[in-house]
Amino acid sequence: MKTFTPQFRNSVAALGEEELIAAIRRWLANASPRAPFGIGDDCAVLPRARAPQLLTVDPVVHNRHFDDSVPPRMVGAKLLKRNLSDLAAMGGRPSAAVVSLIMGGSVDVRWLEQFYRGLAACAREYRVPIVGGDVTQADGGFAASLTLLGEATGPRVLTRVGAQLGDWIYTTGVLGGSRGGHHFRFTPRLAEGAWLARRAAVRSMMDLSDGLAKDLHALTPRGACAAILPGGLPRRPGASVEAALTDGEDYELVFTYHTKSGRAAFERAWRGRFPATRLTCIGQFARAGKLPSGAVDLARFHGYEHLSAAPARSVMSLNT
Amino acid sequence: MKTFTPQFRNSVAALGEEELIAAIRRWLANASPRAPFGIGDDCAVLPRARAPQLLTVDPVVHNRHFDDSVPPRMVGAKLLKRNLSDLAAMGGRPSAAVVSLIMGGSVDVRWLEQFYRGLAACAREYRVPIVGGDVTQADGGFAASLTLLGEATGPRVLTRVGAQLGDWIYTTGVLGGSRGGHHFRFTPRLAEGAWLARRAAVRSMMDLSDGLAKDLHALTPRGACAAILPGGLPRRPGASVEAALTDGEDYELVFTYHTKSGRAAFERAWRGRFPATRLTCIGQFARAGKLPSGAVDLARFHGYEHLSAAPARSVMSLNT
Repeated sequence: MKTFTPQFRNSVAALGEEELIAAIRRWLANASPRAPFGIGDDCAVLPRARAPQLLTVDPVVHNRHFDDSVPPRMVGAKLLKRNLSDLAAMGGRPSAAVVSLIMGGSVDVRWLEQFYRGLAACAREYRVPIVGGDVTQADGGFAASLTLLGEATGPRVLTRVGAQLGDWIYTTGVLGGSRGGHHFRFTPRLAEGAWLARRAAVRSMMDLSDGLAKDLHALTPRGACAAILPGGLPRRPGASVEAALTDGEDYELVFTYHTKSGRAAFERAWRGRFPATRLTCIGQFARAGKLPSGAVDLARFHGYEHLSAAPARSVMSLNT
Repeated sequence: MKTFTPQFRNSVAALGEEELIAAIRRWLANASPRAPFGIGDDCAVLPRARAPQLLTVDPVVHNRHFDDSVPPRMVGAKLLKRNLSDLAAMGGRPSAAVVSLIMGGSVDVRWLEQFYRGLAACAREYRVPIVGGDVTQADGGFAASLTLLGEATGPRVLTRVGAQLGDWIYTTGVLGGSRGGHHFRFTPRLAEGAWLARRAAVRSMMDLSDGLAKDLHALTPRGACAAILPGGLPRRPGASVEAALTDGEDYELVFTYHTKSGRAAFERAWRGRFPATRLTCIGQFARAGKLPSGAVDLARFHGYEHLSAAPARSVMSLNT
């Protein structure tokens, strides 16, 4: 199904504003509460939060994050899931979301309906009310940006800061080869993230969006380097070590674990709680310049440059 | 100053991702707190809210809301102010904002710097921490979308629902002719909105973005019509009655006042508190079909259609 239509009668421009707003509300259905708690007033009204709150934003853009080969329902779902993955990375749960659309008038209404229905289905699945948004006409293209508000699930949110020399490095799931479909089909690790945030020995966490080699820098403490043993990397079938390190869009969690805490009991508890989610200890923080033999030199793997003359694959995020 | 540059060396594409993120943080300076309370982690962490919260989103898009004749600092400030106006319309105050940028690689870095510096100056003025965002490369264009989180300033938020037959209709400021510069120079009516939300006789409120004739429908109770006396409309110098009704982008407040409450004392209190902000009673809700002679028939004035073959002036908002 194509995002844009050459036939005016099928386009959002033909539908007009009032009709389009009514249609969007219909497509979202019960994923969007009634005003003032949802769409229809100057702001959406949300209950006061009981816990520290979390805020993040990420888009999907035509020809960057998807093309006409991707079913629009999956595009809508991905828009929410990539933000949920950011929330999972702090140990949070979702509260509400707003969606900003910027698109040319030739967007196909039928495509847009499927996009919103996919978003709404995902919002119901993860219990995220879509409480507002806006739609702006631009000269062309299609870009949707979702801002997600969430809150901590426990007394602590896990940030990227806190790892120490010697800490173990863990990842969930398998890495690499996400372009085969995983980057649309992934499940945000919300339950896992919340569970990890309650373990004191877990000291920092993030989600993997740009590839382990690039993302892991953010967790690496000063004076340390990540010693990753390539043989131990959990790879998607068919993915090379390089792919596992650099492909990006894994949407798995990577976290660090206090070296003096018991790993065996922790891993046993994980398997009891998340039998279907693979957990792998992929290495440890070594002293900078003291990379153990056999460990990967991550500096050899260049991170992805989002803004360049080359087509961008992903998004550059101020809070990725 | 032009948004786009033909010279690669001045473009955001030439700057590259890491440099651009560093530059944005530098431009925002103390308008953006340090991670995890601002830019730099998967989500921004916010304190728990003491009051019901408010959430809204609105963009600025090149060739829709601004062109090369507008200083980029004003574009950045407007992006925040139009969202602050939505917050004012509910009687709220701002808590935090995130900004999503979708732009072609040929955006001029010097333009972007001024855009962010204008945004940051405005954020400092209104004490809104910019806690995150993202930047995505698209095929071209420039669109920035800001999501604003706020909270109620008192026990009540003012919504669009609550007016009754007979209620007086008030507006702040003057209307019409906003394209002369007001739509960039306006001051969001935050103090006024918060003050009005504490008055029980004020029963509903919104901000004027699409013009009074169109926006007022949202406040009009079932079975009523707005009886506006054109002679009493507070107009910007040079603006016709039609301009005052339809120009849009006034960013003034329109609210309804209980007919049985004392108007004189209310207006006196207003003048004492807001001597510089004009307040005008522009009419009253009459029974539908019983428009008093001399009153404007608002149905004659067509609202602006945001999505059409014609160039769009403003934005269509699900929660405008």
